[in-house]
Amino acid sequence: MRDAGATRTRIMAAATKEFAEHGIAGARVDRIAAAATTSKAQIYSYVGNKEALFDAAFTAHVMANVGAVPFTVDDLPGYAVRLYDAYLADPALVRLITWARLERTPTGSLFGELAHHDDANLQVLAQTRATGLLVDDLEPEDLWALLISLAGTWAQASIVHAASSAEPAEVHERRRKALAAATSRAFCATADQ
Amino acid sequence: MRDAGATRTRIMAAATKEFAEHGIAGARVDRIAAAATTSKAQIYSYVGNKEALFDAAFTAHVMANVGAVPFTVDDLPGYAVRLYDAYLADPALVRLITWARLERTPTGSLFGELAHHDDANLQVLAQTRATGLLVDDLEPEDLWALLISLAGTWAQASIVHAASSAEPAEVHERRRKALAAATSRAFCATADQ
Repeated sequence: MRDAGATRTRIMAAATKEFAEHGIAGARVDRIAAAATTSKAQIYSYVGNKEALFDAAFTAHVMANVGAVPFTVDDLPGYAVRLYDAYLADPALVRLITWARLERTPTGSLFGELAHHDDANLQVLAQTRATGLLVDDLEPEDLWALLISLAGTWAQASIVHAASSAEPAEVHERRRKALAAATSRAFCATADQ
Repeated sequence: MRDAGATRTRIMAAATKEFAEHGIAGARVDRIAAAATTSKAQIYSYVGNKEALFDAAFTAHVMANVGAVPFTVDDLPGYAVRLYDAYLADPALVRLITWARLERTPTGSLFGELAHHDDANLQVLAQTRATGLLVDDLEPEDLWALLISLAGTWAQASIVHAASSAEPAEVHERRRKALAAATSRAFCATADQ
């Protein structure tokens, strides 16, 4: 059993890397088997097909990382900056999310079963808006979507420029300050106090 | 010659649709040939391989659409809203851009040869910032990246929610207002005047 667990762990690690790099259509189960020093037959004995393997890798990786950046409604600029750092530290995260968007769920909400995570944040945003700490002209769901998009400005699906850890520290620091300033002005009622 | 031109037009239309839907790895030249009522041999006589066909489709589609939304530096909220509408009207645009990002250029600036388009906008932003119309704590390149990301909040690569034309008109209108308000506060020095 211990050995089976270790094999499964290697398969999931190899699958996460392969899917993050190539997406669902581009991933090759051969490469995952080789990287995990196992066989395609062994992989298919755990999951039925490549799509199910993606689902397992996606859910495990995203859920593990989503909770790693706590949502601080009283410090949205700090939250956005911590997301910037999280995306930088884990290039696989946004790539997996974006493959899921392009290859699985082209419109609507991306997270089906995981949506309750966002629901909790939307409730907190609604409560906080009522206290006057946030601007009052944005519905919580719109504020949330705008905030996540702003925080992902330089993430791995960026239209303009995707950050990498190879860039100089001062470039990252300049972006963090810009992101914090824009986030504060866009969403916080007390930005200028 | 006229017939060859028509064939080429059909190939490019079919390739754009196929790549927008499936990306580079997922695209099948068989399907493009069938949709264009031509042969794989005919396609390969125009372009050497699938990757080159993607490049041709990507460049043609992105360049045709980038110019369709003029950059109005004196009305950034209006520009962001027009991008929202452009992404909604042409779901292929951001999907092609995002496949290029994931499959081609994982870090850095996405547009190599096309970058001069952004350069012109950066110059205009720098000049406008000097007049006091924009906030003075964001470098033009950061403002531009943040603005494009904000405008793409509900675009086809969205983490939270990708808009579609099937949604009610009032939802789109609510998002346009939210986007304009956030854009104005984040970037315009005169937002509260």
